[in-house]
Amino acid sequence: MPAERIDGVAIAAKVRAKVAQDAEALKAKGVTPGLTVVLVGDDPASAFYVGAKEKACKEAGMNGETIRLPASTPEAELLAVIDKLNADPAVHGILVQMPVPKHIDAQKVIRRIDPMKDVDGFHPVNAGKVLIGDADGFAPCTPAGVQVMLQEAGVETSGKEAVILGRSTIVGKPMAALLIQSGKGADCTVTICHSRTKNLAEHTRRADILIAAIGKPEMVTADMVKPGAVVIDVGINRVDDASQKRGYRIVGDVKFDEVAARASKITPVPGGVGPMTIAMLLANTVRAAQLSLAGTPEGAR
Amino acid sequence: MPAERIDGVAIAAKVRAKVAQDAEALKAKGVTPGLTVVLVGDDPASAFYVGAKEKACKEAGMNGETIRLPASTPEAELLAVIDKLNADPAVHGILVQMPVPKHIDAQKVIRRIDPMKDVDGFHPVNAGKVLIGDADGFAPCTPAGVQVMLQEAGVETSGKEAVILGRSTIVGKPMAALLIQSGKGADCTVTICHSRTKNLAEHTRRADILIAAIGKPEMVTADMVKPGAVVIDVGINRVDDASQKRGYRIVGDVKFDEVAARASKITPVPGGVGPMTIAMLLANTVRAAQLSLAGTPEGAR
Repeated sequence: MPAERIDGVAIAAKVRAKVAQDAEALKAKGVTPGLTVVLVGDDPASAFYVGAKEKACKEAGMNGETIRLPASTPEAELLAVIDKLNADPAVHGILVQMPVPKHIDAQKVIRRIDPMKDVDGFHPVNAGKVLIGDADGFAPCTPAGVQVMLQEAGVETSGKEAVILGRSTIVGKPMAALLIQSGKGADCTVTICHSRTKNLAEHTRRADILIAAIGKPEMVTADMVKPGAVVIDVGINRVDDASQKRGYRIVGDVKFDEVAARASKITPVPGGVGPMTIAMLLANTVRAAQLSLAGTPEGAR
Repeated sequence: MPAERIDGVAIAAKVRAKVAQDAEALKAKGVTPGLTVVLVGDDPASAFYVGAKEKACKEAGMNGETIRLPASTPEAELLAVIDKLNADPAVHGILVQMPVPKHIDAQKVIRRIDPMKDVDGFHPVNAGKVLIGDADGFAPCTPAGVQVMLQEAGVETSGKEAVILGRSTIVGKPMAALLIQSGKGADCTVTICHSRTKNLAEHTRRADILIAAIGKPEMVTADMVKPGAVVIDVGINRVDDASQKRGYRIVGDVKFDEVAARASKITPVPGGVGPMTIAMLLANTVRAAQLSLAGTPEGAR
C-alpha cells in the first residue's frame, strides 16, 4: 500500500487560518500584527520569496511590509534600518532575507535584530531557548513547521527513532533540538547524520521518522528506508529536465515514488514542507505581537 | 586487555596550568581575571563546591571571591547583586551556585547574568552559540570538559558514532551540540538517548564514544558496550555502602570494572570527568577576561 501523503498545503492553510483568527483578536485589542521584511539587492529568487511573505501577511489580516535596499547598501546602513525597526512598536517581526550581499556580515545582521522580533528564530538567544526547551523563544520556521506537520498528520513521536540528515543551522540542528525535548510532538530518540557520517543507510533504516535536509537531489532511496517509516523531505533541489519548458524541475532529497511505496506517510516536494515555512513565519509574528502586549520576559533581550 | 584509564586529574591539571599561564599574561597587561561565585543558603554540598572553586581560582593566580547570602534572601536582592557584578569591570565571571532556594526562579537568575560573564554557559545566548557552532560563546563546563578529555586522550572523533545517555540542559543537550559541529574534537554522528528511548542497549552498543550522563548508578553494563569503545562517565551517584565509614560510596553511571574489561578507554569515577568541570570554569573565566580586553562582539549581550 503506498504511503499516505502529508499535505503541506492543507496543513499550512490550517495554521494560517488560526493566525488570521489570532490577528483578528489582536486587532480587537488595537494591535495589528506586523512583519517587516528587509531585502538587500535584487536576487530574483529572494524577491520572489519576499513577495510571497508580504502577500501571506496581508491574506492573514496582518501588516506586511518590505524594505528594499540596493545591493550596494553599506552594512552600517542596514544595521541602522534594523535599529529603527527594533524601536518601532508597530513592527512585531523583522526578517532580513538571506543571503545578504558578501560585503555584509550576516551573523552581525541576525544578532542586531531584537530577539523578541526575531521571527526567523536565527538569533543565538532563540537558538538557545530551542536547545534548552524554553517555549518562550522563536523556533526557526522550517523545523517548527515539520514538528507541526508530524502532529497534524497524527504521527506519534514519543519514544520513536528520529533520524535527521543534515546539520544546518536553519534546519538540522534546531530540528534535533525540538525533537529531543520532553513533551508533545517530541520525546524522540534523535540521531543527527551529516557528510562525515559513515554507513548512512544503517542509520536511516532505523528511523521511524526520517527527516531529510541535506540538499542532495533524491539521495534517499527506498533501500535506505524502514518499511512503514514516516518520511519528511525538507529538500528543494533543481535538477535539469529538458522535457520541462523552463529546463529544470524541482525535486526533494527523497526519491519520492520508490520511497512512497515503502513508507507509511511521506511529504511531497513541492507541496510538503515548503508551504509550512511561511505559515510558521506568520505564526511566529502573531506570537511576537501577543508577547509585545504581555511585556518582555527576563533575559529575552 | 583492560581499557586505558583517561586520567581526569592529570588532564584537568594541564588545563589549569594553561589557565595560570594565561592569567599571568593578563596580569602583565594589568588585568587579573576574577570569578565571583554567589552562594545562597548553606547547603553543605554547595558550600563544598563553592570552596573548591574559590581555592582553584587562587591556585591559578586569579581572583576568586564568594558572596554568601542567607537562604531567605529575596529574589530581587539576588538580582540586584548580579546587576552589581555585571557592572563591575573587575569581575569577569559570575556563577550562581545551583540549586537556589525554592522561592527564587533559577531561570530568571541565570538570564540576569551578563552573557559575557556567564562562565557556567547556562544563559540562552551561550546555549544558542553552542548549538549554532559559534565559538565565541561559553560552553557549559562539563560537556566542554568531556570534549577536551577526548582530545587529550587522543580519541579521533570525526565520523565516529557518539551516543549520549541523558538530555539534561547542563550535560546531554550541550554535549550533543558540541559533538555535532564540524571541526576538531567533533564531527560525530550523534544519538541522544533518554528515559523515553526504547531498546537502549541497541543504541549504546553502536557507540564508538559512549557518554553516560543519566544519573543512574552503574546502569551501563558490559553487555551494553561495543568492544573497543571509549566510555565517558559523567555520573556522580551516592550508593549505600555499610563497609564505608561514611555509609556510602560514590559511583558513576557505568559499572566500571566490567566495562573497563571491554572498552578501549574509560574515565573513572571519581577522578574522571569531575575534575574537568572546575578546570573548564577557570578556562572560561580567563577567556572572559581576555574578551573583556577585546571589547564586546555584536549580539553577545
